[in-house]
Amino acid sequence: MTESRFLKACRREPVDVTPVWFMRQAGRYMSEYRALRERYSLLDICRAPDLATEVTLQPVRRIEVDAAILFSDLLLPLEPMGLPFDFIKGEGPQLERPISSPGDIDALRDFDPRVALAHVLEAITLIQRELAGRVPLIGFAGAPFTLASYAIEGGHSNNFARTKSLMYGHPDAWHRLCSRLAMVVADYLGAQIDAGVDAVQVFDSWVGALSPADYREFALPHTQRIFDAVKGRVPTIHFGTGTSTIFPELREAGGDVIGVDWRIPIDLAWERIGSDRAVQGNLDPTLLLGPTARMLTETSDILDRVGGRPGHIFNLGHGILPSTPLEHVQMLAQYVHSASRRGR
Amino acid sequence: MTESRFLKACRREPVDVTPVWFMRQAGRYMSEYRALRERYSLLDICRAPDLATEVTLQPVRRIEVDAAILFSDLLLPLEPMGLPFDFIKGEGPQLERPISSPGDIDALRDFDPRVALAHVLEAITLIQRELAGRVPLIGFAGAPFTLASYAIEGGHSNNFARTKSLMYGHPDAWHRLCSRLAMVVADYLGAQIDAGVDAVQVFDSWVGALSPADYREFALPHTQRIFDAVKGRVPTIHFGTGTSTIFPELREAGGDVIGVDWRIPIDLAWERIGSDRAVQGNLDPTLLLGPTARMLTETSDILDRVGGRPGHIFNLGHGILPSTPLEHVQMLAQYVHSASRRGR
Repeated sequence: MTESRFLKACRREPVDVTPVWFMRQAGRYMSEYRALRERYSLLDICRAPDLATEVTLQPVRRIEVDAAILFSDLLLPLEPMGLPFDFIKGEGPQLERPISSPGDIDALRDFDPRVALAHVLEAITLIQRELAGRVPLIGFAGAPFTLASYAIEGGHSNNFARTKSLMYGHPDAWHRLCSRLAMVVADYLGAQIDAGVDAVQVFDSWVGALSPADYREFALPHTQRIFDAVKGRVPTIHFGTGTSTIFPELREAGGDVIGVDWRIPIDLAWERIGSDRAVQGNLDPTLLLGPTARMLTETSDILDRVGGRPGHIFNLGHGILPSTPLEHVQMLAQYVHSASRRGR
Repeated sequence: MTESRFLKACRREPVDVTPVWFMRQAGRYMSEYRALRERYSLLDICRAPDLATEVTLQPVRRIEVDAAILFSDLLLPLEPMGLPFDFIKGEGPQLERPISSPGDIDALRDFDPRVALAHVLEAITLIQRELAGRVPLIGFAGAPFTLASYAIEGGHSNNFARTKSLMYGHPDAWHRLCSRLAMVVADYLGAQIDAGVDAVQVFDSWVGALSPADYREFALPHTQRIFDAVKGRVPTIHFGTGTSTIFPELREAGGDVIGVDWRIPIDLAWERIGSDRAVQGNLDPTLLLGPTARMLTETSDILDRVGGRPGHIFNLGHGILPSTPLEHVQMLAQYVHSASRRGR
């Protein structure tokens, strides 16, 4: 496993070919997944270790990916904290009682992930048994800002008005909430590492909504606590979208690998992030809808800009879209491998 | 009117105090507006020159703004092109039959804005009569990318998957659509200028979803045609959000003034935009929800970063949120004026 090209790239060590995996590589675009979803809800799958294992392995069987990622959901830790939620068809997650006042934050509960989320840890054991060292397994959790935004908005948001309103209006309560979330996430990721994941990704998907100064004040210290807690145990990836103006702050918060979306050329992004970090990204997921010629041209451009420099993990700037043809994903992974090999 | 500090700032001429206006300064956060909306729909107001005039003037009466902006909607030109729409409560605009194939684009109709949108031009005449030179009036229209995204998605979108899918998959059809939109918008803005607006703003609200290379290929030439068409007639403002990685491309497309959201400090943004352009922005609209101390501190920071350099128009990074207290907007406008006067 130490020979995995994904893990080597996380450490900026030279690799034979550029490693590739995809955010949301298990999901609706795969017929095997859709077939399972006819019988089980998303939460059913997250909660049943055998189903989570099956779904995690589906893309590993069909696509030349260099890592598996645990099939789970960012929001799982919210329920044992006292914030139950469900997924509403076509609308995404919806919390039953979103946080609407500082008092709601004080009412949140602590929990032991080894008990409340034991099913996730069990899934990790099962997945690693099935993978048998073929590719490493990535565990993950949400960053405090992104988790807090779901906890406060109750679901997706376009402007994060409620989130920022609490942040600006009740900064003490905000920091209490994010400290709690950081503790929970650090503990949860620690448990995932104990259970056997080979790397972890912290998803701060919506953090690009913050100004650099607000990121530094309201998000950085909490996210940093998470990275500090798992430091040196396994490689860490720090992901967000719309983050091109906060790269210095993201790297300061932590992560051996920094995620880059498609809004900035990868070479310019890497320059701003710094050469002492690896980078992951940066293809626009909509390019995978086709035509494939354009998808491959853009991929080739990314590889050219990186120029074979150690420490690049190929990925999309965000998750695979549900309407993506599987064959395009397969072709893309193969292309990354063959083009980056040719390039040497 | 040539003495207006707003118009002077557009031309980067020295002003007595920093001019200020707000995107969506007429809207739900004002009780006068909500009262009208109990009797009339948004489209009723857009289509009745006397109501559009009343709503345009509401903020000018209550807030120390240095410009009025025509009350209207970005999507108005879509209906006479053959794309009728309505506003669904809580969900925003919804098109009856969004564009779903290249064939739909060829079926679009041309129209004369002086006939089909005569009510807008009549509103401009009425508003100018009422304003009587007190403050200048800004006209506006949507940029091709943003208009095309509504035409294709049928409403708001989180990922612009359908839009980009048409763009990547049928680039000829995409360019035909955007050429049509650019012609329509150029003609419409020309008619607004003929009717008497003192400046125009082109809204490319969602263009931050594009990579720099995609912006250059798919949006720039069309937006440029619009700015070229009105060049030298009145000052022009080019607005978008999430655009910090495409400032060089935005300025190339055009605009005497370039809009800046809150994701980048205004001095750094201005440096990237270039000193031969004015800038407008960059307060996060959620800061207006309160507390006001933080709103004013951030405003002060923006003014400090600008340092009294000619060519700054104070505004938000996006529109005023419906839940904003009117008193905060009033206080903010006053503060911009008094703090920028003190600063000289």
